[in-house]
Amino acid sequence: MIDNLSDPPCDARMPGHADRARAAGMMQRAGLDALLIVSPEAFHWATGAPAGVAAGWRRLGAAMAVIPADPSAPVGAVASDLFAGPALAAGCAPLRTHPIWPEALSLRAVMRDGASAADLIAAATADRPPGFARPATFDRAAALAQLRALLADQRLAGARLGVELSAVPAADLPALEAAIAPARVIDASALIDRLRSRKSATEIALLRQAGAITEAALKALIPAIREGATRAALGRHFLDLVQQHAAGASAPVTAWEYVGFGTSPWSSPGTLSPGDVIKVDVGAVVGGYSADLARTFTLGPAPRLAREVFAPLLDAFEAGRALFTPGTALATIHETCIRTVHAAGFPSYARGHVGHGLGASIWSEEWPFTAADSDVVLEPGMVMAFEMPWYLDGIGGFIVEDMLLITDTGAETLAGATLPRGLVAL
Amino acid sequence: MIDNLSDPPCDARMPGHADRARAAGMMQRAGLDALLIVSPEAFHWATGAPAGVAAGWRRLGAAMAVIPADPSAPVGAVASDLFAGPALAAGCAPLRTHPIWPEALSLRAVMRDGASAADLIAAATADRPPGFARPATFDRAAALAQLRALLADQRLAGARLGVELSAVPAADLPALEAAIAPARVIDASALIDRLRSRKSATEIALLRQAGAITEAALKALIPAIREGATRAALGRHFLDLVQQHAAGASAPVTAWEYVGFGTSPWSSPGTLSPGDVIKVDVGAVVGGYSADLARTFTLGPAPRLAREVFAPLLDAFEAGRALFTPGTALATIHETCIRTVHAAGFPSYARGHVGHGLGASIWSEEWPFTAADSDVVLEPGMVMAFEMPWYLDGIGGFIVEDMLLITDTGAETLAGATLPRGLVAL
Repeated sequence: MIDNLSDPPCDARMPGHADRARAAGMMQRAGLDALLIVSPEAFHWATGAPAGVAAGWRRLGAAMAVIPADPSAPVGAVASDLFAGPALAAGCAPLRTHPIWPEALSLRAVMRDGASAADLIAAATADRPPGFARPATFDRAAALAQLRALLADQRLAGARLGVELSAVPAADLPALEAAIAPARVIDASALIDRLRSRKSATEIALLRQAGAITEAALKALIPAIREGATRAALGRHFLDLVQQHAAGASAPVTAWEYVGFGTSPWSSPGTLSPGDVIKVDVGAVVGGYSADLARTFTLGPAPRLAREVFAPLLDAFEAGRALFTPGTALATIHETCIRTVHAAGFPSYARGHVGHGLGASIWSEEWPFTAADSDVVLEPGMVMAFEMPWYLDGIGGFIVEDMLLITDTGAETLAGATLPRGLVAL
Repeated sequence: MIDNLSDPPCDARMPGHADRARAAGMMQRAGLDALLIVSPEAFHWATGAPAGVAAGWRRLGAAMAVIPADPSAPVGAVASDLFAGPALAAGCAPLRTHPIWPEALSLRAVMRDGASAADLIAAATADRPPGFARPATFDRAAALAQLRALLADQRLAGARLGVELSAVPAADLPALEAAIAPARVIDASALIDRLRSRKSATEIALLRQAGAITEAALKALIPAIREGATRAALGRHFLDLVQQHAAGASAPVTAWEYVGFGTSPWSSPGTLSPGDVIKVDVGAVVGGYSADLARTFTLGPAPRLAREVFAPLLDAFEAGRALFTPGTALATIHETCIRTVHAAGFPSYARGHVGHGLGASIWSEEWPFTAADSDVVLEPGMVMAFEMPWYLDGIGGFIVEDMLLITDTGAETLAGATLPRGLVAL
């Protein structure tokens, strides 16, 4: 199989998302000359172009971007031949390419009435070197040779390169080091996470759409949460509702859902029954950018135990939510939330984080985490899920979660504003 | 958000899938004492248990399995506390755990009428050390300390460990090496790929179901391929059809689809029109195991150029299909297919592989690849996609693809047997 080139979308109006001035400052402080980006998600962030199908295995070399410390120098890239067009359109310069396995040609420039397919294809491949062949997947050595040439193009041949080593397989590191010497590899995974944590205007626009679609679909799901419903039907209905609310989105929309009910947080009984606790933890994903929103309901009046465990979660949520403003340490929010639950008579509550960054990542939760050991202070442009979950087998799964955009003065709720936070009885 | 523990499913009837005798032979020849498995997919293969939510970031330590060379020694594992139950049920021994961020408890053993939630939770956490706290995500150092202890339990403290270094981030390798010294880390990525390429009976059963569901859903999609249909509607309809055909599957079923039409392989026009080439490349996924099946249609009679480019693909497919029998080198199949297209008047055709392994992997295409540089010979128990694709912007996207199980005497078609391979006019 092969993905469509247009999914994830390449939009020439969406250049890379890196804040180049901020990147320059961070690189200067870290003594770096450039950043080498290798994960598919961060390649798209750095360039605005999709990493392409060869990145599916997450091995080094399918798609790589180099962000120079000099903010006036463009982002360079090594892309597969099949995805060179989008990278070029996105403004990657220099752009170097390497062939990958799919045999693909554009015949549009050679089309003429009555010509045979053989003639058209011969014309479109006239420039190919004799014996041109494609690798089984992609050729790491060829891609790394192009990276070496790219660095020379960018006058970074002997640079100190901050590399996304969290996304370089250890099996590929020696080849990288050999290919780019005397340039040096320095782990910049944490620096890149930090740089990506403040979103660009375009990223915020995608997350805002994802949040709005998620909230609309969750609200539309509520009438279906009725006695006799199955977990599978509720989950599929949510995914359908997302598509129904996706019209007009600026990029393709997908979704995920963790809907469950009953006394176990981990497996739902066959059908929904009165007294069941219902956990709805869902997200629409627009152009790769995921929302995250959750509410807990009961079918009919909430059982006593459900009310007892949900009350401190809601108290903690309200206490924590008030702290989402620029300058607040994530550790302070975590401590406030945990202390609130402890003080309500549950001193064992030990949730590791009460929220996380949102964006386009390998998983729906990305750095930074609202946790005890975080050194992060909220800044405008961060988009965060804020959540208070508790999984209690015997009573049920509980969560309240909103999606927040940190603004200059506080936080805007991107998902959750119109949904009551309490344990709503349906 | 948090995934359900039951998705991917943990089934005590599904032990690990490694062929321990074969693994022992391969380790002996490579001078290894054990294999260290770290990717989420291979952990599930090695243990039969899900790697769990902490593996979502693909950083080292969330879930690790150790397969001793001694085939009588059980597979040991380091799992997160939240996923210890499934790993224990799957038979992992020894099993060592480390806490991850979700606060989860089972109250079932302490439930009593009239007790308060606070009392129940206090009873369920009575064994916790004072001040118990959870990490922001997972604690790599804690997980690696458990790995060190596991190796000591397994009498592998000074072992030569064949490690899945394709799935160890370079940022995590130094911590691994330090944690397990004097045990030594040796890259065994290729050995593990080879070991996984022959499927267990349970894996074959899952792939067989995936193939059957895919074929049934593709056939049911055909009546919807009509003038005026949109790409999005066709794609969603296929996904719905998969769910309609998924009843009775032994594990949760998802699906993917690359349906497209028109003269560009990369983007479909708004609606389907007479003369359009329609490429349907799809797969159902059962318990993580993906099928892969593709056909090409035209709406109304096929345009001349479409017929001219499809004919050599079909000829090559028929020539290659006849070679799928134990003992055939994948390189021979590739050469036969490419030569067939060349001989038909298209000497530039340069597809890198004409198929790939199928299983539960990070992407739908897994090793081995049917390619010129492959050293692999077909063996019974391999499950392969066999495909002849061509992407010609200006004419359309073309593919014919079946899903095959290598048997003792040939190959059984797991998907595609009842679908004509030709360029069918709808």
